[in-house]
Amino acid sequence: MPRDQRRLDHLTWPEFKERVNRTAVIVPLGAVEQHGYHLPLGVDGQLPFHLALEAASRFPAMVAPPVWYGYKSQPRSGGGGRFPGTISLDGGTLTDIARDLIADLARQGQNAIVLLNGHMENTAFSGEGADLALRDRGAQAKVVLINWWEHVGPDVIDRLFPEGFPGWEAEHASLTETSLMAHFLPDLVLQDRLQQDEEFRPVPAYSVWPEPIGLVPESGVLYQATGASAAKGALLADHIAGEIVSILRAEFPDLAD
Amino acid sequence: MPRDQRRLDHLTWPEFKERVNRTAVIVPLGAVEQHGYHLPLGVDGQLPFHLALEAASRFPAMVAPPVWYGYKSQPRSGGGGRFPGTISLDGGTLTDIARDLIADLARQGQNAIVLLNGHMENTAFSGEGADLALRDRGAQAKVVLINWWEHVGPDVIDRLFPEGFPGWEAEHASLTETSLMAHFLPDLVLQDRLQQDEEFRPVPAYSVWPEPIGLVPESGVLYQATGASAAKGALLADHIAGEIVSILRAEFPDLAD
Amino acid sequence: MPRDQRRLDHLTWPEFKERVNRTAVIVPLGAVEQHGYHLPLGVDGQLPFHLALEAASRFPAMVAPPVWYGYKSQPRSGGGGRFPGTISLDGGTLTDIARDLIADLARQGQNAIVLLNGHMENTAFSGEGADLALRDRGAQAKVVLINWWEHVGPDVIDRLFPEGFPGWEAEHASLTETSLMAHFLPDLVLQDRLQQDEEFRPVPAYSVWPEPIGLVPESGVLYQATGASAAKGALLADHIAGEIVSILRAEFPDLAD
Amino acid sequence: MPRDQRRLDHLTWPEFKERVNRTAVIVPLGAVEQHGYHLPLGVDGQLPFHLALEAASRFPAMVAPPVWYGYKSQPRSGGGGRFPGTISLDGGTLTDIARDLIADLARQGQNAIVLLNGHMENTAFSGEGADLALRDRGAQAKVVLINWWEHVGPDVIDRLFPEGFPGWEAEHASLTETSLMAHFLPDLVLQDRLQQDEEFRPVPAYSVWPEPIGLVPESGVLYQATGASAAKGALLADHIAGEIVSILRAEFPDLAD
Amino acid sequence: MPRDQRRLDHLTWPEFKERVNRTAVIVPLGAVEQHGYHLPLGVDGQLPFHLALEAASRFPAMVAPPVWYGYKSQPRSGGGGRFPGTISLDGGTLTDIARDLIADLARQGQNAIVLLNGHMENTAFSGEGADLALRDRGAQAKVVLINWWEHVGPDVIDRLFPEGFPGWEAEHASLTETSLMAHFLPDLVLQDRLQQDEEFRPVPAYSVWPEPIGLVPESGVLYQATGASAAKGALLADHIAGEIVSILRAEFPDLAD
Amino acid sequence: MPRDQRRLDHLTWPEFKERVNRTAVIVPLGAVEQHGYHLPLGVDGQLPFHLALEAASRFPAMVAPPVWYGYKSQPRSGGGGRFPGTISLDGGTLTDIARDLIADLARQGQNAIVLLNGHMENTAFSGEGADLALRDRGAQAKVVLINWWEHVGPDVIDRLFPEGFPGWEAEHASLTETSLMAHFLPDLVLQDRLQQDEEFRPVPAYSVWPEPIGLVPESGVLYQATGASAAKGALLADHIAGEIVSILRAEFPDLAD
Repeated sequence: MPRDQRRLDHLTWPEFKERVNRTAVIVPLGAVEQHGYHLPLGVDGQLPFHLALEAASRFPAMVAPPVWYGYKSQPRSGGGGRFPGTISLDGGTLTDIARDLIADLARQGQNAIVLLNGHMENTAFSGEGADLALRDRGAQAKVVLINWWEHVGPDVIDRLFPEGFPGWEAEHASLTETSLMAHFLPDLVLQDRLQQDEEFRPVPAYSVWPEPIGLVPESGVLYQATGASAAKGALLADHIAGEIVSILRAEFPDLAD
Repeated sequence: MPRDQRRLDHLTWPEFKERVNRTAVIVPLGAVEQHGYHLPLGVDGQLPFHLALEAASRFPAMVAPPVWYGYKSQPRSGGGGRFPGTISLDGGTLTDIARDLIADLARQGQNAIVLLNGHMENTAFSGEGADLALRDRGAQAKVVLINWWEHVGPDVIDRLFPEGFPGWEAEHASLTETSLMAHFLPDLVLQDRLQQDEEFRPVPAYSVWPEPIGLVPESGVLYQATGASAAKGALLADHIAGEIVSILRAEFPDLAD
Repeated sequence: MPRDQRRLDHLTWPEFKERVNRTAVIVPLGAVEQHGYHLPLGVDGQLPFHLALEAASRFPAMVAPPVWYGYKSQPRSGGGGRFPGTISLDGGTLTDIARDLIADLARQGQNAIVLLNGHMENTAFSGEGADLALRDRGAQAKVVLINWWEHVGPDVIDRLFPEGFPGWEAEHASLTETSLMAHFLPDLVLQDRLQQDEEFRPVPAYSVWPEPIGLVPESGVLYQATGASAAKGALLADHIAGEIVSILRAEFPDLAD
Repeated sequence: MPRDQRRLDHLTWPEFKERVNRTAVIVPLGAVEQHGYHLPLGVDGQLPFHLALEAASRFPAMVAPPVWYGYKSQPRSGGGGRFPGTISLDGGTLTDIARDLIADLARQGQNAIVLLNGHMENTAFSGEGADLALRDRGAQAKVVLINWWEHVGPDVIDRLFPEGFPGWEAEHASLTETSLMAHFLPDLVLQDRLQQDEEFRPVPAYSVWPEPIGLVPESGVLYQATGASAAKGALLADHIAGEIVSILRAEFPDLAD
Repeated sequence: MPRDQRRLDHLTWPEFKERVNRTAVIVPLGAVEQHGYHLPLGVDGQLPFHLALEAASRFPAMVAPPVWYGYKSQPRSGGGGRFPGTISLDGGTLTDIARDLIADLARQGQNAIVLLNGHMENTAFSGEGADLALRDRGAQAKVVLINWWEHVGPDVIDRLFPEGFPGWEAEHASLTETSLMAHFLPDLVLQDRLQQDEEFRPVPAYSVWPEPIGLVPESGVLYQATGASAAKGALLADHIAGEIVSILRAEFPDLAD
Repeated sequence: MPRDQRRLDHLTWPEFKERVNRTAVIVPLGAVEQHGYHLPLGVDGQLPFHLALEAASRFPAMVAPPVWYGYKSQPRSGGGGRFPGTISLDGGTLTDIARDLIADLARQGQNAIVLLNGHMENTAFSGEGADLALRDRGAQAKVVLINWWEHVGPDVIDRLFPEGFPGWEAEHASLTETSLMAHFLPDLVLQDRLQQDEEFRPVPAYSVWPEPIGLVPESGVLYQATGASAAKGALLADHIAGEIVSILRAEFPDLAD
């Protein structure tokens, strides 16, 4: 593995010291969660990690080591704890991780902190961690929480889904995630196991505990991934990284070069 | 990045399902912590991660995504929160992470779980997580917690330190860690910044809060790293992986092939 | 106040005993949060409380006392902690409330439990409470979490918003909430303070801490409420209560008479 | 329901803003707990809620939405978890609720905060919440915790209990609570189910876990309620509200008009 | 210090093993809290410790090491955090201590557990610990919580207080505590510093945070201690130990010899 | 028991007030844990308590009441939860105790605080408490954590172990603890139950949960205690107390007289 100076964990402490608060710190948040027959369990962390690296090529930023584990996968977003391989944290644990990391970065003078999230279920709990870091730990920081899929513009959606977009809840292990993985980590997409298109099954509109059996299709894929391609992934990656950079420029104007 | 079937996060969920409880799961525990002028902040996670992969080449095991962040670095083990770039979790947060991961693995039938730790300060808090997973979550699992440096035999020590071993507390960013990094991730060792040997300064024999200034040498290195080499790292890696595998064979005899 | 046998807190304990697990228990979840110049701070609890009563007229159910306070109001859903009168709980506190109530109901044999939520930000934290009640407290219960606004069908939306629907995020103190309040509690709608239509300002697509100043319009209303009416509220209430009852029938078929 | 400007949840946010720290905020604390054959489960919240409203008619104050749920009912105060319908929170949960509400009120400048408690078992845990709000959240507030039954003067006691007062521990669902309910919410007193006087059974002088069976009389009433009347309730309500107002005047002299 | 076989911490593990669940275990709960000019800070732990030893002379029981620290001293019981030397635990900490000790005793088969409490403010929090040990840890135990001062019968009160009893709230560092200390630990009573009788000042009937200045008399003694004597202490000790033994006989009849 | 002015709990509050921050406060940390056939369960608290008293004879210090209970005994340090009589706290509970005591001492102006620890497993968790007291409670204090066995110099070791030192992990209920107990509390050493020398069994080099059966010798003693004597205990006590005083002089120079 070559040294990548965008990665915080590849830096020495004097290198970190030079960059602290002169660049943003991006913490990718992921999950270990089923992603169908053709994608690996680590997708939700790999995507924000690679998007963060791409953003860090365009804006001064250090990419912190990803938090690979996330909050419990929910059927409403196409996952669920009933699939083998979904390994999750409690909500309070994720909150505490976010709180601790933000507070400890702020302690050293790092003001500009970005949580780049790849797992829908992480949103509320990691956001609470940001709030507690500022309120209870006195962190002098500005924290931005970005869910990458919320920054795909309507024109890109139209290009990727000419027959209509099923909604992001259905986009689990489907066209966008598969394309992005095919772009960033092509060896991790098992093209031959990509299922024939299943009939679209809408996600439930309420939640039930204990998790019902059979809510999610057997494969774990809510919607078709067959149209996915590395080219579409490249388009998405470029677009999303651009949007992230726009946010960073807007929120941390002093850091923009 | 090629697909690595030893890595849990590279597997699809059906592949995980095939392996669950027919292989061990190894969770590397690290830290983001100063490692002198010549080693990067991520050493403490990278070493158990690569040692785990090496062990998984010799014993049926899945290597789970590392927990990159660890408990607060302490001067008594050569680190300390006063160095820029040391980004830590509270003790309770690390306990909860270990508890959640073990409990969620056990929920799916995974009995054989290994915490492979690369940061001395993680030991007590992650061990408490193991205890709570079994006691409070009812996890039906056997958890083994291994600190890799406790498995370097005296003859290897003698070969590496012909002039005498300063003790593992002093081995922070020093000969063993530098050699292992030079073996696993040579690009991440900045040989030209390796300091001339400092005079050995023993670690303090008691702890003080707030952390005193100047306890640790300015570089962050407690003892000489100049004798480090990739060859010594290869020797160490082979030896330690062998010891880990011996433990796995002894503790999980049913999994040994 | 007349005795209302749909209300759990109006029952004596022998009356509760007769009904326990022969009816569902619905716990309304609210918030104390700004709702513009014309609606009171208690809207988010009053709406699920009255919808629950309406549902309990059509399906055997006891309506438990509302949890009036909710998770911190967020700008992304039109609220925010910067408005006076927004009084909130931490995420962990809300999780614990939901966990305790579910577990204590289940302890007495109540299996059918519904959280009827009126505040978007409560969703994840109260859902975690449901999960913990079942997992950590051993609650033998089936818990259903319903956000009322997710059950307004597209044809109703079309009738209410002939000029296009701005999305539920914008529907804070706007047409639907104002209409429902005008139906259930007309004295609490200050018609004369209803603002002229502001230009629609879309909610932000990412979150920032500390909460930015000026994200939400000065009034606290994201979108026009001027088309609101008690008649539209009656339509909505009837429709939503019907949807809730459909869910109860589907999830608790043994209780349906 | 008419708009009641004493109720915080009936106010709009600009109305709240006008009153903040120019009036006290009273938070009623209740419980959902058995109250014999003739009183409903919600007594412990209704009484402080109505007493707070009465006090707010005499002293500038906003009555916040009640915390309907309280700490686990104990046999020593005539309740107990063995009765159906007793639905309780853990001690830590109640502490966190009190801490969060006080801290969030203080954040907006509200200094004068009253917890008006109707359930003996809430006392210690809600008091701890007050302490933590000030100490850990830095709330700049003065918090007063009042148990209403501790403010019934000896002459009133003598008038109500000419044959001798059994002690407040025995006054569970008995004369005072029944009279106050008959005054505030007469429809919620089931006069025909009021039991003939049972022989007085003193409450136990120590606590046992698990809760013993049969400690509390079968009805749940420790002492006679047959002498209760709306007239006595009116007397009590007037007296207690007067005492509360005296405390408010003494503790918040700047607010008294 | 001679070996005292009533003390659990004086036993070897095989001796403990012989006694486990064939005797009760009594855990004294204390506090470090001001006790006037003439009594030491440790009174609240010493009294239940010595009463427990006395009870263990009459009933088969092991006296566990005291929990010397207790919940925050409150003005309503004559103490308060404003006096130097009052060193307290949070409520949650005391709950966790009680929970852990009960659960760990029960784990080894010890069913009969007594919390003998000497500090009024500990009651609710240690009781919650007992509840959680049974509910959340599955402890198979019967826990009895005794406040020693609640077991002084009216005839003893009459003998000790011929001029009338001020109530236990006022009995802080006063006649009963001073007499018991004079009996058990006479060297720790500084007779020469015993103040002349102050005029009785009743304890407040509600609580205020932050703790008001001057609520408690300057000495810290609420009521006269001048009538105290070792003889009265001997009478009290004998009486209370007898009452404790009566409770133990009633609650643990199988252990009574 | 004579009054001992070194003991904080023997002081009145005015005496404490005179000493506060003009002397150090030493809090002994212990455990209730098996110590073989010949030593009682309370050794781990008694040793730091008596060493603290000895140090307080040589340096201005108050010895606070010991925290008798400690973190779960581990096989790696010769103990283990499988022995009857081992009664432990969770890690988080011990952290909270240390945090609360330090913070409450600091609140009264006590800056110089020493945790004198007698149980290896307490180290990390009590240290975390110190960190949290300073960071989260704003305690203005300097906290020193000393494990007494880490301050036995090599020459003393050589005198006590002429045939070689097995390491402190093995020194559980062995020569040093037995000698110190024979010095401080001779009646608590059951000389006749002292086992013949067992063959030395090294402690395991990794941890396993659930705790394996048979890891620790049947007696609970890892290594020979037969050479123990009160004379050796006196030598050790004098030496260790001297080392503690040296640390106190170095860390709290203003207090040294």
